[in-house]
Amino acid sequence: MRVFRSVKDLGNLDAALKEAFEIKADRFKYQELGRNKTALLIFFNNSLRTRLSTQKAAMNLGMNVIVLDVNQGAWKLETERGVVMDGDKSEHLLEAIPVMASYCDIIGVRSFATFESRENDYNEKILEQFIQYSGKPVFFMESATVHPLQSFADLITIEEYKECDRPKVVLTWAPHPKALPQAVPNSFAEWMNAANVDFVVTHPEGYELDPQFVGNARVEYDQMKAFEGADFIYAKNWSCPGVTCPEDYGKVLSKDMSWTVGKRQMAVTNNAHFMHCLPVRRNMIVTDDVIESPRSLVIPEAANREISATVVLKRMLEALK
Amino acid sequence: MRVFRSVKDLGNLDAALKEAFEIKADRFKYQELGRNKTALLIFFNNSLRTRLSTQKAAMNLGMNVIVLDVNQGAWKLETERGVVMDGDKSEHLLEAIPVMASYCDIIGVRSFATFESRENDYNEKILEQFIQYSGKPVFFMESATVHPLQSFADLITIEEYKECDRPKVVLTWAPHPKALPQAVPNSFAEWMNAANVDFVVTHPEGYELDPQFVGNARVEYDQMKAFEGADFIYAKNWSCPGVTCPEDYGKVLSKDMSWTVGKRQMAVTNNAHFMHCLPVRRNMIVTDDVIESPRSLVIPEAANREISATVVLKRMLEALK
Amino acid sequence: MRVFRSVKDLGNLDAALKEAFEIKADRFKYQELGRNKTALLIFFNNSLRTRLSTQKAAMNLGMNVIVLDVNQGAWKLETERGVVMDGDKSEHLLEAIPVMASYCDIIGVRSFATFESRENDYNEKILEQFIQYSGKPVFFMESATVHPLQSFADLITIEEYKECDRPKVVLTWAPHPKALPQAVPNSFAEWMNAANVDFVVTHPEGYELDPQFVGNARVEYDQMKAFEGADFIYAKNWSCPGVTCPEDYGKVLSKDMSWTVGKRQMAVTNNAHFMHCLPVRRNMIVTDDVIESPRSLVIPEAANREISATVVLKRMLEALK
Repeated sequence: MRVFRSVKDLGNLDAALKEAFEIKADRFKYQELGRNKTALLIFFNNSLRTRLSTQKAAMNLGMNVIVLDVNQGAWKLETERGVVMDGDKSEHLLEAIPVMASYCDIIGVRSFATFESRENDYNEKILEQFIQYSGKPVFFMESATVHPLQSFADLITIEEYKECDRPKVVLTWAPHPKALPQAVPNSFAEWMNAANVDFVVTHPEGYELDPQFVGNARVEYDQMKAFEGADFIYAKNWSCPGVTCPEDYGKVLSKDMSWTVGKRQMAVTNNAHFMHCLPVRRNMIVTDDVIESPRSLVIPEAANREISATVVLKRMLEALK
Repeated sequence: MRVFRSVKDLGNLDAALKEAFEIKADRFKYQELGRNKTALLIFFNNSLRTRLSTQKAAMNLGMNVIVLDVNQGAWKLETERGVVMDGDKSEHLLEAIPVMASYCDIIGVRSFATFESRENDYNEKILEQFIQYSGKPVFFMESATVHPLQSFADLITIEEYKECDRPKVVLTWAPHPKALPQAVPNSFAEWMNAANVDFVVTHPEGYELDPQFVGNARVEYDQMKAFEGADFIYAKNWSCPGVTCPEDYGKVLSKDMSWTVGKRQMAVTNNAHFMHCLPVRRNMIVTDDVIESPRSLVIPEAANREISATVVLKRMLEALK
Repeated sequence: MRVFRSVKDLGNLDAALKEAFEIKADRFKYQELGRNKTALLIFFNNSLRTRLSTQKAAMNLGMNVIVLDVNQGAWKLETERGVVMDGDKSEHLLEAIPVMASYCDIIGVRSFATFESRENDYNEKILEQFIQYSGKPVFFMESATVHPLQSFADLITIEEYKECDRPKVVLTWAPHPKALPQAVPNSFAEWMNAANVDFVVTHPEGYELDPQFVGNARVEYDQMKAFEGADFIYAKNWSCPGVTCPEDYGKVLSKDMSWTVGKRQMAVTNNAHFMHCLPVRRNMIVTDDVIESPRSLVIPEAANREISATVVLKRMLEALK
């Protein structure tokens, strides 16, 4: 595996899940694989779960890890040719990326949506540059539009806790005070479409996800209807993806608190498990009752981030050979 | 050992000291103990000695180390239930702590007194939350009220340099331009009360330490009298502990420069060793002459921070089995 | 090797180069050498290449690495004796340095020129204090006046790519919008003087390098003339070294864009390789065409930073035995 950004990069999903459970049973099993290999983790944005779980995953595999925090504001890379660089950009990406790559074997990059331009965000400008110019395997540690390590961990969690062969999984929008990227819902939709689940998305009108991720998934604007008989509720806020109105991209169109996931909605589910990628704002996204209930999976789901990252790094290490 | 915050957590002190000297003689002796174990060191406050010595200690034991710097100001965790989190707090401790804990085996936390409330500081709100919600062993890397890794290193140093069975040890307040926490003097008093020493505390009136730490130690308001015949002088500034006047908690009540430890005071001691936890402001806390004299132990004392941390982590690793 | 700051510290250069190529062929060959040894890398200034390549080098040798970022502005160390430390300096270097040193085996320090005083910069005040007070081997990760890890990497690169026994190497000044230190050209001049090359320096008048580094190297004020028949062009901006006019130290005396290295100048060379230490401002220092040409060595040169650092750490480890 040379790039990890999509569910497609994993190939056969059943095999990937089997590998995940093998690693979960003995997370140090492939410790020799990473000997004398170095993972460079580049954070253009803050990180808690991803930072810790990916470091842990690399160490599980016996890798060396170098963490590099880059202030997205301060590190201004020139990206065009022909520019006289007499301003505030002190380095060109055509030098910076190959140089960073020369000191490591595998690169992870976190770089959020900036909301300055839908086109730049959805073109994944920064990650694409790393893929194109680093010459090394690159995995996405949440980019402008996707968060595949999260979705893989979510899938592992659903596989662990499902009580029927083909559970009903509902992705629901929920209110939040700030404008958040679409990376988590995009990837979750993409991964659920690929998994053996009955997948439904519910959100207020105007929050339609990008077709490249949501595909033909069933969209239901009535949250209560969507929740009926659900086995897993996956809550998440996102700002307007700008699919129908590009000028609304990144805007908060609604703070409708009736979408906050509470007992009322959970009551119509099939005693569903509750999931969220964290961090979560309680009583905006979900009530205390629901997130603290025995059916809440938010902690095991976060713990599975170590497992998804270990599988991804393992596969990248194997491809280096 | 599941928690390390007090001298009591070590059990028999002689055994602990013996273990410390065994490790000092061969600090890599227990290197297999930490194999595939991860220490997460969380710093809510700046650190030099603790950061370096604890990393070194963990590596002595073959552990993996993840250091996490958390801006106490920026990382606002909600701690109450029922709050609609629509403000500046983006995560609830009930999620944040178990998640961090899920990627490691042992957690160290540094979190200073904020002086906003004596009650909050002395209740050790942050550390108690880590103990309660992490499900992992937690050690204090200086908290609001204690600094046990320092006091253990101090005890090791006194044991190494003492020239009689039961030395006289004097903890003396000294002036400082800023308001400092009581963590170091609190722990030092607690540890000296438990050790085989003749312990005296001296400070201006109003600086009485909290009874839970100072216990029945002899308090002497006349610094010169306290120093008579002393074998070890341990200098430290602290702000008002608020024992007699709670409203004075955290205040600087005195900058009396006659308390600066100099030749005059050292002359009445039994050629005492000088100790301080560092960083130290020269000619406020102690004169150049005294801190540079051959009887000064400030550097070996700091070096013993590696030893105290190695013993603590070793015991926590043993308890994991 | 107890200090690494100069080409002289390496001894026989042919032997050092041979060692470099041996390590480049198998960079993990000496992995047992660093077992249970800790490198402390202290950054008073930002770093990308040095940070990554030196960490990688230490890990190549099996060392533990602790990286310490120190805000040069925030970490104010008192350096004088007799001062009452009641101001903003909270620690004296006589304590801080030995303490840091006590937790490691080898220390690397990065500390740039401040341009506040030519004397302080050229006396290498901070690095000298580490050498004098740490009691540990100290290597320069770019100081106020030298950058030996870069120059060693440059020499390795020239050795790899040279097409004749004694190539002509030209160090050329080039324009830059900001005042930059002289560390890179100082060291490059020093190292080229020691190497088996025909060395020429070219720059506008007033930019004369310090004699202790440039020695008797040929200086040519006409850039085109200097470039004639060159095998390697090493471009770099530097601010006024203040050799002829001390009051001009650190000033930008020229932004003459005719010095930007482009096709015009490269045309008179012997199909020269282009070198620069990076980061580089394109179309100020060098045109896109030249830096992207097949004769550009900027990426392999940066990659060799790992090799130069590995040799230096290897030699320091050997000297510890």
